Amino acid sequence: MRRLLLLSNSTQHGHGYLDHAIDEIRGHLAGVSRLLFVPFALHDRAGYSAKARERFAPLGIEVDELLAAPSGARQVETAAAVFVGGGNTFRLLKTLREAGLAAPLRERVLGGMPYLGASAGINIAAPTIRTTNDMPIVEPPGFEALGLVPFQINPHYLDPPPDSTHMGETREQRILEFLEENDRPVVGLREGGWLAIAGAAGRIGGLSGARIFRPGAPPEERSPGAPLDDLLAG
Amino acid sequence: MRRLLLLSNSTQHGHGYLDHAIDEIRGHLAGVSRLLFVPFALHDRAGYSAKARERFAPLGIEVDELLAAPSGARQVETAAAVFVGGGNTFRLLKTLREAGLAAPLRERVLGGMPYLGASAGINIAAPTIRTTNDMPIVEPPGFEALGLVPFQINPHYLDPPPDSTHMGETREQRILEFLEENDRPVVGLREGGWLAIAGAAGRIGGLSGARIFRPGAPPEERSPGAPLDDLLAG
Repeated sequence: MRRLLLLSNSTQHGHGYLDHAIDEIRGHLAGVSRLLFVPFALHDRAGYSAKARERFAPLGIEVDELLAAPSGARQVETAAAVFVGGGNTFRLLKTLREAGLAAPLRERVLGGMPYLGASAGINIAAPTIRTTNDMPIVEPPGFEALGLVPFQINPHYLDPPPDSTHMGETREQRILEFLEENDRPVVGLREGGWLAIAGAAGRIGGLSGARIFRPGAPPEERSPGAPLDDLLAG
Repeated sequence: MRRLLLLSNSTQHGHGYLDHAIDEIRGHLAGVSRLLFVPFALHDRAGYSAKARERFAPLGIEVDELLAAPSGARQVETAAAVFVGGGNTFRLLKTLREAGLAAPLRERVLGGMPYLGASAGINIAAPTIRTTNDMPIVEPPGFEALGLVPFQINPHYLDPPPDSTHMGETREQRILEFLEENDRPVVGLREGGWLAIAGAAGRIGGLSGARIFRPGAPPEERSPGAPLDDLLAG
C-alpha cells in the first residue's frame, strides 16, 4: 500500500527548513531510523544531503545520500523510506532516469516504502512532469515520471496577484493550457499545504488548501482536511 | 543577412496588442505587404490569426496563417516576412518540428527574410528552449530550437518582487541554475523591451533594458540602446 507525503514546498516563508510540516513528517516516518535522500534536483548534491542530514538528526533519523550510480539501485532496494528534495524537476528526472533509478524507486514506493517529497520531489510523483513550474535547463529522456498517483500536481500553486502588471501567463492560465492538451486532473497545491496519501485514501493537509483543475469543468477549491479519494481513484 | 525583431511581450500592461512596439515593427516590416503568421503557440489557431490579421490591417499588411501541414513548407519558402506569436513554447516548437517547418523557416530567416517574434516566438529564436518560462504541457521531439542567435533569451524577465513571501525560485535563480548545466549566455529581456538584430549588429530597444547572464561572471545590466554585438559574435 502506497504511503506518500507530498509537500508543496520544503520551506515556508519565515520558517526553517521543513519546520511547517515537521509534525506530519514525524508521523509519516514513525519507526524509520534511516532515510534515503535524493539530492538530484540541486547541483550541489553533497551540500544538499548535508542539509537534510542536519534537519533529520534531531528526529533520530540518519540520512543516506542516494548515489547516481549502479550501486544506487541497491540503495533503493534496501531503503526504509525515501525523501526526494526540491530544486529543478528536469534535472531531478534526468538524473533518476539516466541512472536507471526511476523504475526501482517506483516499485518500492508502490510496494509500501514511505515516500516523502517536496516541490520538484512531488512533481515526479505524478504521471508526468508536464505541470512543473521549473525551467527546462536540461533535457530528460522523456517527461514521464514515477506515476505514484494518477493526477498531475502543481506545487507552489499561486493565485493571481491582484495588482500585477506582469503580462506572463498566470498559474491558472498555464494549467488551463495543460488541459487543452491533456486529459488528466491537476492539483494546484498552495505553499504551506501537502497531500497525505495511504493506499486509496488521501487528504489535503497544512494551511492553504488546493485548487483542482479537471478537463471540462470549472476549477474547484478544496480546503485543508478535504479528501482526495475521488482523484486517487483515477 | 538575418533581420530579427524579438519582443519580450506582445502586449504591454494597459496597452493594446503590439502597440508599445508598433513604430519599431513598422520599420522592421517596411516594404512588406504580406506577413506569414505562425499561430502554433496557442490552441485556437484560427482565432489567433484573426487577431493578428486585424492588428496588421491598419498598417497595410495582409496576414496569412501558416498551416501545420505539408503545404506549410511552400508557404515558408514564398513568404516575404514572418511573425511568430506568443503562447506556449513547447506547443509551438512541437508543432513546428512535427510539421517539418523548423528547418525551412530557419533557412529563410538566415537568408534574410525579416523575422518578428514575441514571447514564445523569441524563445524559439535561441539555440534551445531551455530558458523558457512556460509549462511543459506537451513534449516536443527535443529542446533544440531555430538557433537564429547564438545566445539564450528569457522573455518577460522579472526582477525579484521586493516584498514577496513566495518560496518558488526567482527568475534570476532559475537562469543561474541554467548556467550550472549549460555554457551559453542568457539575455533576460524585461517586458516592454526588444532585441533588434541586423546581421552581426544588434541593440536593445524599448523601455526596460535587459539583464545579461554569462557563465562564470556576475549578471550585467544593459540599458535600452545598448549594443548586443558581443553576444552576437557567439
